[in-house]
Amino acid sequence: MRINEKPAILTGKPMFNETLPVVQPPIKPHIENILADCRRILESGMITNFEYVRKLEKAAAEYIGVKRCLATANCTSALMLALKALKIKDGEVLIPSFTFPATAHAIYWTDLRIRLVDCDPKEFNMDINDLQEKITDNAKVIMPVHVFGNPCAIEEITEVAEDNSLKVVYDSAHGFGAKYRGKQIGQFGDAEVFSGSPTKAFTTVEGGIVSTNDSEIARSVDIGRNYGHSGNYNCETPGLSARMSELHAAVGLNQLPHVDSDVKKRNKIATLYKHRLEELPGLKFQEINRDCVSTYKDFSILVDKNEFGLNRDELATALEKENIMTRKYFYPPLNMQDCYPELRAEESAYPNTSKIANNILCLPMFSELTGIQAKGITEAVKGIHEYAREINATLHGKR
Amino acid sequence: MRINEKPAILTGKPMFNETLPVVQPPIKPHIENILADCRRILESGMITNFEYVRKLEKAAAEYIGVKRCLATANCTSALMLALKALKIKDGEVLIPSFTFPATAHAIYWTDLRIRLVDCDPKEFNMDINDLQEKITDNAKVIMPVHVFGNPCAIEEITEVAEDNSLKVVYDSAHGFGAKYRGKQIGQFGDAEVFSGSPTKAFTTVEGGIVSTNDSEIARSVDIGRNYGHSGNYNCETPGLSARMSELHAAVGLNQLPHVDSDVKKRNKIATLYKHRLEELPGLKFQEINRDCVSTYKDFSILVDKNEFGLNRDELATALEKENIMTRKYFYPPLNMQDCYPELRAEESAYPNTSKIANNILCLPMFSELTGIQAKGITEAVKGIHEYAREINATLHGKR
Repeated sequence: MRINEKPAILTGKPMFNETLPVVQPPIKPHIENILADCRRILESGMITNFEYVRKLEKAAAEYIGVKRCLATANCTSALMLALKALKIKDGEVLIPSFTFPATAHAIYWTDLRIRLVDCDPKEFNMDINDLQEKITDNAKVIMPVHVFGNPCAIEEITEVAEDNSLKVVYDSAHGFGAKYRGKQIGQFGDAEVFSGSPTKAFTTVEGGIVSTNDSEIARSVDIGRNYGHSGNYNCETPGLSARMSELHAAVGLNQLPHVDSDVKKRNKIATLYKHRLEELPGLKFQEINRDCVSTYKDFSILVDKNEFGLNRDELATALEKENIMTRKYFYPPLNMQDCYPELRAEESAYPNTSKIANNILCLPMFSELTGIQAKGITEAVKGIHEYAREINATLHGKR
Repeated sequence: MRINEKPAILTGKPMFNETLPVVQPPIKPHIENILADCRRILESGMITNFEYVRKLEKAAAEYIGVKRCLATANCTSALMLALKALKIKDGEVLIPSFTFPATAHAIYWTDLRIRLVDCDPKEFNMDINDLQEKITDNAKVIMPVHVFGNPCAIEEITEVAEDNSLKVVYDSAHGFGAKYRGKQIGQFGDAEVFSGSPTKAFTTVEGGIVSTNDSEIARSVDIGRNYGHSGNYNCETPGLSARMSELHAAVGLNQLPHVDSDVKKRNKIATLYKHRLEELPGLKFQEINRDCVSTYKDFSILVDKNEFGLNRDELATALEKENIMTRKYFYPPLNMQDCYPELRAEESAYPNTSKIANNILCLPMFSELTGIQAKGITEAVKGIHEYAREINATLHGKR
């Protein structure tokens, strides 16, 4: 680790000799077991939506404590099928403005419409007051997001939904392994929809999982992922091709028993980050919902230039020179995405979302990140802060 | 092989001791190479939409003789993205009534509408005369299907499209490896869309490939499969999550050099089937388009009960007792699917489709099917024909 030296952006030696990625799939310890399963699958000739997928669904349902889990090709398809399973022909789905675009895209491909809700400035999840204000007669579904794996205010959302007779489907893309007051995320709403893409704390290479206690929704997703028929090729509903492959299920199955310990490791890293960075001025952290466990799918910091000396983009540039990858995430938020001109609004319409999206930076976070690496990252941030004035001059050509 | 014995349905010994599947993915000879690649992929940590996918796209484009190939999670997503890439807001897509439901489903999820065209009674592909009759001012796209891998009447379709200023996207789900008058299928129309699901002559476990010479369409599909952004997370268009995983790409890459020899093997089996079955009354075969090579994704027979003595369903039941799996495919056709009441029509509205769909049966067809097995299947069909009267009595309780 570099000591008493200038940041790399000021010609110092980089903190890391090799590039430290911002995420890494949590599969390395399980490669031999995964490959043994891949051999069995390929030799059997049954390579998609078969025994390994069934085993994964059963194991995931037991882990979550829910009646059914349905594995799909990816999370967006799963969200589309979960929304379709509600059998609502027309109306609005309320989603946070601070989320990944896929939350909105899933609605775009259905007959439903998108309505944005601002986020809470501390927990980054859907703001309950703004949610209540955005509900009109057109509202049909609330689709909250457990942002970065931080469980939503589920009790409050449930109450709002009940008061207004709305369905609730959680976009739990980041949430596999999170806990809400002792209960596993995945048990709530009409359904929850997880992502298994490689950036997640639990991965199936590509994939999605719908968890639900509603047997009608389960059946609809089950047939919907296979074109909409139940085996006789006469489709009850126009479905998708969204089966999970057996190879992908094997990757998930081998990792599933280790999700809790992986989430623990991530929380340890988050604690280390916060402990070592909180002494710096101008950095804030996402607050985790009371009595909840986040997956820390991402560890993010909010950067206030006035106090820290550099803004989010400048810090990211300086960290890149240290061979530390970061991610501006979610940026731009949904109200600023080019593909949704109809959702475009002044930043003041979504004040919390704007403040977070403009200042957020995600630091490296994966279950195999070591304490030494995490400390190195915090040292790099500290060094960059110390030299903020000089870095500003270098970046902006003022000498 | 069984000689001089009654069919199994009449208490004879089954033709095969073990169940002969109707399809089998063409991967067995390549398992060791696939597993070696899987190890490299898992160890690298780059497990989706990366180097193996790029290699597969490059190799597929070279094989087909087209500028760009884009690999996706599956064929339905690829069709959705290819249709979206045409940037047509509203209008009809003309598709054959005799096709797999996914052809229609891909349209259902977009803003476009489905219009059905009857098929040719001999080649089973879209009928050119009916196509011309179905074109109105609402028509925007023709989406023909190379049914069972038999190339469409491409010149005629191209002419109709040009005369009416229509776009053409081929649903080439069955067509990877087929040839149209010396040219590889995949070069035609605005784009062609292949399936890599396990039932195909070329498989990527799950997957789709869009082939096109149009750089705008290529770019649209490229970003569309990754949420609609080109790397900066600001989406130009609401996309899907439809990346192909590296593991799936490795399966395809290892099989690609063997597609031509696999297609040859399948054509040999088809010739054997036809040669040995044509002496039986009441069986007809799909005619392959002149100077074309079919993939024989499926080998189908049309069963005329009046001449053969049993209908399609009865023959299927009798073959199952011989441990020979078959498939009624495509049945029901699109005009009879429960999920499309608005497309429902009397059978007489699609006379050729109805006749084929009601009488078609696909026999086992995969690249590792041996000549001895294929002969056994034809012997079983012959035996069943010989005992047709007795089987009828057994099935329908008339003694």
